[in-house]
This record gives sequence, C-alpha cells and structure tokens, in this order.
Amino acid sequence: MKGLEMDKGGSKKMKTKVLELPKKIKKVLKDIWKVGKDDPRRVKLSLKIGVSLTLVSLLYLMEPLFKGIGNSAIWAVMTVVVVLEFSAGATLCKGLNRGLGTLIAGSLAFFIEFVANDSGKIFRAIFIGAAVFIIGALITYLRFVPYIKKNYDYGMLIFLLTFNLITVSSYRVDTVIKIAHERFYTIAMGVGICLCMSLLFFPIWSGEDLHKTTVAKLQGLSCSIEACVNEYFEEEEKDAETSDLSEDTIYNGYKAVLDSKSTDEALAMYASWEPRHTRHCDRFPGKHYVKVGSVLRQFGYTVVALHGCLKTEIQVLSELTTSIQNRRHCSPEILSDSLQVALQDLNTAIKSQPKLFLGSNQNGTVSQGNSERRSTAASSERKILRQQLSKIVVMTSLEFSEALPFAAFASLLVEMVARLDNVIEEVEELGTIACFKEYDSNVDRTDVEVRVEKPGNLVVGVE
Amino acid sequence: MKGLEMDKGGSKKMKTKVLELPKKIKKVLKDIWKVGKDDPRRVKLSLKIGVSLTLVSLLYLMEPLFKGIGNSAIWAVMTVVVVLEFSAGATLCKGLNRGLGTLIAGSLAFFIEFVANDSGKIFRAIFIGAAVFIIGALITYLRFVPYIKKNYDYGMLIFLLTFNLITVSSYRVDTVIKIAHERFYTIAMGVGICLCMSLLFFPIWSGEDLHKTTVAKLQGLSCSIEACVNEYFEEEEKDAETSDLSEDTIYNGYKAVLDSKSTDEALAMYASWEPRHTRHCDRFPGKHYVKVGSVLRQFGYTVVALHGCLKTEIQVLSELTTSIQNRRHCSPEILSDSLQVALQDLNTAIKSQPKLFLGSNQNGTVSQGNSERRSTAASSERKILRQQLSKIVVMTSLEFSEALPFAAFASLLVEMVARLDNVIEEVEELGTIACFKEYDSNVDRTDVEVRVEKPGNLVVGVE
Repeated sequence: MKGLEMDKGGSKKMKTKVLELPKKIKKVLKDIWKVGKDDPRRVKLSLKIGVSLTLVSLLYLMEPLFKGIGNSAIWAVMTVVVVLEFSAGATLCKGLNRGLGTLIAGSLAFFIEFVANDSGKIFRAIFIGAAVFIIGALITYLRFVPYIKKNYDYGMLIFLLTFNLITVSSYRVDTVIKIAHERFYTIAMGVGICLCMSLLFFPIWSGEDLHKTTVAKLQGLSCSIEACVNEYFEEEEKDAETSDLSEDTIYNGYKAVLDSKSTDEALAMYASWEPRHTRHCDRFPGKHYVKVGSVLRQFGYTVVALHGCLKTEIQVLSELTTSIQNRRHCSPEILSDSLQVALQDLNTAIKSQPKLFLGSNQNGTVSQGNSERRSTAASSERKILRQQLSKIVVMTSLEFSEALPFAAFASLLVEMVARLDNVIEEVEELGTIACFKEYDSNVDRTDVEVRVEKPGNLVVGVE
Repeated sequence: MKGLEMDKGGSKKMKTKVLELPKKIKKVLKDIWKVGKDDPRRVKLSLKIGVSLTLVSLLYLMEPLFKGIGNSAIWAVMTVVVVLEFSAGATLCKGLNRGLGTLIAGSLAFFIEFVANDSGKIFRAIFIGAAVFIIGALITYLRFVPYIKKNYDYGMLIFLLTFNLITVSSYRVDTVIKIAHERFYTIAMGVGICLCMSLLFFPIWSGEDLHKTTVAKLQGLSCSIEACVNEYFEEEEKDAETSDLSEDTIYNGYKAVLDSKSTDEALAMYASWEPRHTRHCDRFPGKHYVKVGSVLRQFGYTVVALHGCLKTEIQVLSELTTSIQNRRHCSPEILSDSLQVALQDLNTAIKSQPKLFLGSNQNGTVSQGNSERRSTAASSERKILRQQLSKIVVMTSLEFSEALPFAAFASLLVEMVARLDNVIEEVEELGTIACFKEYDSNVDRTDVEVRVEKPGNLVVGVE
C-alpha cells in the first residue's frame, strides 16, 4: 500500500518535472543569450576562433599546403585552440610564452640528445629518464616563484611539455631535429594566425578594459555615497520600495570596487604585453591603474562602514542583545554571555550619559547654513558636508546614545574626505604618467561632468 | 671629450653592475629557496611530477610497453604535464574534465566522420571545415556561461581540441577510430598516473587548505582588533618602533581577509571535486566556507574603518586642509577648492560646539568600572567594551570636536559587535553542516583557546 503510494508520488513528481522541463530549457537558453548580450565582444571572439580554426584546418584540407607540412599541422590546430584568448594582451602573452617555451625546450632537448647520442641504448634510456625527472621537478618548482608565476607560467608549462615530447620520442625516432623544427614552425604558424586575428580584427585591449572598469568603479562609488547620504537625511519620507532601490544602489556601487583586485591585476598583466595602441602615451601604465584600484578599495571600505552605520543606527544594541539571548551551541558562556553582558553594560552606560547642551550660537549657524545652502552649491561633496553640518546643529537635545551613531556618520564622512585625498593623488599621478589632457575650464562642460542634483524637499530643521 | 666621458661613465656603470652581480644572484637564489621554505608541499609536488613524468616515459623507454601502445604514448606524457596540479581536488577536476572532454569529442567526431564518409572529397572538406567553424564558435561562446566557466572550462577546451584533432586528421588518415581509441586510452593512462600520485602520495586537500585559511583569517582579524584597541588606549606610552609593529599587525591581520575572495572560491571549487577524506562529514561544505569568508570580509571592512579612525583622529581636518591647499592640476575649482571650503566650514562649526557636560553619576561609574576591571575578565570582547566605557566616562570636559572621532571609534566597536553576530551565525551553520564536535566545557581548555592578556599598565583616569 505504502509502496504504491510512494510510486504514485514518484510518478507525480516525475510528471511535474517533465512539465517543468520547457520552463527550465527556456531559462537555460535565456542565460546563454544573456552571456552574449552582456558583452557582445564574446560573440565576436567566438566567431574569430571559428574562423581561425577553419583557416588552420586548411593546412590539412588543401593538398599543396599539406604536402609542405604534413602531419605536424596538428600542432598548429592545437596552438590556435589554446592560444587565442579574449584580449590582444592575453593572446600575445600566451603566444609569445608558447613560442619561447618551445624554442628553448627544443634547444635543450637537442643538447641532451647530442650528449646522449653516442652511448649505448640502456645508458641512453637511463640518461633520458634522469633528465625527464630533474627537469620536470625543477620546472614545477620554479613555477611557484611569484615573478615567474605571474609572467611566464604558461611558458614554463610549454617548455616542460615540449622538452618531454622531444626528449622521450628521440629515443625511438632518429630525426629528432626534424621533429623539433616541425613543431616549432607549426606552432609559430598557429601563433601567427592567432596574433593576426587578435590584433587586426576587432582587437580587444586589456588596457582599455582596465581604464573603463576604473572609471566604472569611481562612478559606482560616487553613486553609492550619494545614495548613502540621501538615505540618511531623507529617512522620514522614504517608503519600502525606494529604500530597497537605494539599498541596491549603495551595495552594487561599492561591491564592484571591493572585489576588483584579481581582475585588475590580471588586466594590468595582459595590458603590459600589449603594444602601444593609442597616440596618447608611450606605455600603458597598468601598474598605476592597479594602484588607483587599491586606493579605491581603501576608499570603498569607508563607504561600507558608512553604509553599515546607516543600517544599524543605535537600535542595534537592543536587537543584538535579544538575538544573542536566543543563541545556543558554540561555547555559550565564552561568546554569547559575555557579549550580552558587555552590551547591556555599554547600553546602560551610554543611556545614563547626560544630554548634549548646545551653546547660544546654534540658531545663527542654522540660518546661515540654510541661506548658504540656498545659494549655488559648488559640488556634491560640498553639499554633503553642508547637510551634515546642519544636522550637527539641529541636535539640540539629543541623548548621548542617540548622538553616537550620528557622530560616527559624521566622522566617517570626514575620514572619507581624507581618503578621497589619496584617491585624488593617485589619479593625478596616473594622469601625469598616462599623459591625460590638461584640465581646461573653457572646453565643453560635458567633458567634466559634475552632477549637482537638487534634493526634492529635504527637511532641515528642528524635528 | 664629452663622448669619452660618457664612455667612461658607461664602463663605470658596467663595472658596478658586474660587481653587483653576485649579490643579485644571491638574492634570486634566496627568493627561490624561500618558495620551498614557505610551503614545503611545493617541493613534494615537484618531486611527484618528476616521478610521474619518469613513469610515463617508461611507456616509450621500455620495449614491451612501447610495442603495446606505440607513438600515441606521447599523449600520456602530455596529460601528466598538464593535469597534475597542486591539490588532489584540482587534479581530479582537470583529469576528469580531460577524460570526459576527450570521450565526448571522440564520439562526436566519429559521428561526423560517419555522416561525411560516403561523400566526395571536396564535399567532405567543406563539411569538415563547416563543422570546425561551428563547433569552434559554439564551444568558445559556451565557455563564457558562468556555470560552465566555473566547473567545466578545461573540459570544454579539451573537447574542442580533441574534436579538431580527430576531425581534421580524419581527412588524411582512414583509421580515425583507431586514433580516437589510442588517444583516449593513453590520456586515461596519464590521468590514472596523475590521480594515483595525487591521491595516494602526500595528498594535498583543497578542503583542508580552505579550513586552515579560514581559521588563519579569524585569527588575523582577532589580532588586528586587539592591536587596534591596544593602540587606541595606550597611545601615551608607545614609541615609534612598537607603534610600527602594531601597525603591521593590524594591517596584515585584515589584509589577508580582504583579498581572500578569489582564493576561497577556487579552493571551494576544487574541494567540491574531492572525495570524502575524513570521517567527520559526508561532503565537504565548501560553499559554507565561502559564505563564512564573505561574512568575515564584511567584518573586516569595519576593522579597516576602525583602523582608519585610529590613524586619522580629528587632526586630519587641518592636515587635509593644508594638503589640499598645496594641490594643483585636475580641475582645481571643482575638487580642491570646494573640498577645502567645506572642510574649513565643518571644522569651524565643530569647534564652535560647546563642551560636553557630564552628569553627577560619573565618579561612581568610574570607580565601579575600575573595580570591576580588576576582577576576572570573562573575555577579550568584554574587556574591550569595558575599556571603552571607561573612556566614555573619562571625557569630562572634551571639546565636541575631540569627542567626534572617539564617538566614531565607540560606534564602530558597536557596529563590529553587530557584525560579529553574523560571523557567529555563519560559523555555527558551518559547524552544523560540517559536523563539528559539540562544545564540551569539560574537555581540556586548550581546545577552545581564549587569550586574555592583561594590559601592562593601562592608565585609565582623568588626563
């Protein structure tokens, strides 16, 4: 009976699964479509690889070409599959690594062949085995050296590969030099096709990418800070939807910055292989972009703290106390209890602090602030600080406990300005090295866009 | 005359360069030595690869083995070079990807061969060319799909490679099935040797690595926070050297956490390929370690803010004003000037705020805090908050501007406690899923080590 029911349940499940299949397939296809929509260069690369592979296949398919090269043409096919990468820099890096690795390995293999040539067969086998072991272990070890790992990892791999192929097969084949030659020529041919495709048809420059992502990161951060400050000062009139939206803006703005380290470094590395492709500058200053990225990350951490300050406010104390109260497991008396006691102590202590009394100059400052606020604002930073200033003045009779998160907010803004200085410094240095155009206030203002949005109906006054 | 001098200068430079050569070589050798010293498993891996390559070379060097396999043995050598990776998980991932890719590509190539078999030579060439183009473009495109990129990138590459090799060479060779078979067998052989080496001799588990780095990150953060708080409260008695040391502790503590995203994800991915290797748990919960890592990073951002708060204090305002004054270039009136004005405004406004007056209960709280501080402290968190509490009480007559960074510090500590809650939650969830041992207060206390260091001579009192 039970088994029958289970069977029924099973078949029902099966049925729903089958019915959901078209939906699933639709979703997968949508995901696949999105890949190309997000970055159309991916489609271009796919077509480029298709064309390159077809071209290199002609070495096999066309009689006169095949006669010249023969079976070694297979190495060219292999090279195209492995070397043609997304950006021109990556392709150059891989192609040159592959070419150099093959060349050096071929020379070494030839040398070893030369040494072991006149000896007996058994001695030769032992000699080859030993060479394979030593070179294999040595190259693997060297690949861990940071400098080599960063620039020549693929070259080392290809060196090891080629060396083994030639040395080992030299034991059975007498024409080792011919093998080495053929392998080198066909690989060079493959690399040549890859480089042509990569540099001449729709080239994708890592340096450009690095430049664009740096700009995008700066924009993201600025949106993030703006949303943060807006949310902080407009809390009364927000509804759930806009709040969610601004949450997303804030989060996405700094998220991209925080996780950018490895991408930035890879792009800079590839960019360092790229030839000069603009007339602006001699060499692409990849290292400086990485530096700007690192300073931006530092700046981003403060934005995260500001966001956290926004989210938690002081009620976090009581929330935290109850949430910790409901906790179990995991060394209770060490973590939870002591935390709880400490938090309660802190909460009591802070609440027991007296009120802040403001001096007599408060009203004057407010009105001055207001009138000044109505005058033309020079930049968004200025306005942010001005608004914060108004808030300082407004807190006529706040409890110390209420003032705490506000003080943190203000202090973080100050901190942010300090870090902004670092960012400006790095960007200026980058500008000098990358030969940016001089700033010219006479040119069209769209060149330097400073968004100054007027707040809708920002209420600044005594609550 | 001038040329001669330049020549002289040149030769002098050359001489110093030659004289510095032994030093440079020594440095390079030291760097290379350090690679193995930092992680002795690298040496083990090098030896493992050496042994595997020698083993696989025997296929060529020993007569009976070579008779069985022939020239295809070269694929086995290639496989060993490419597949044997640092950890067991990475080797399994690459090995299985390579095996599967070869198998599926072989089947597809066979199917195409079957379709194109009976047609004329020219039609066949066109058919093969078209297949190469379509499959090449399609696979390249699919490799951008995030799910495939994460798990099967290498498999896709090998699929494309094998498919091309077999399809293209099938045009000239009639025994395409034999080629496909041989390639598959030899690759399977290579993968087999790699897996044996990787799983049986000194296996390196990515899961273990992930576990260890997570622990190290937690330790680093805790050291960092401790150093931060110590520096904040012991500022009077520090000298330059210890200050630098604690700077390093703080920085290195959170640095490792902030940059851990890509490493964590790679380790978790490899760990997901690893077989169960401990009796603790069914599957290694790699995803949860990544989650803990992400929460730790969130926590780390607050530590960075705390550190920043420590470094800048309020003097940053005046420092910043002067540093901005000396700035040139880069749209001066938009960035620097407005910032400067805003900062000066803020500075004046803050300085003009009245003093904080504390209520009558302050002395009682101080003595109570002191006596309690002398009693046994439960945990370092508790002590940190207690110390901070004392500091709150001590500020009898601070200027508001001086209180600002302090309030930020206190607020960040509160914020940190709130985030600590997230960390605890994630670690507990991980503990449940990874089947951690239940906490047992009766077992040896070294199991749960809580460092409670007594501060040397911490001065808490009216300055």
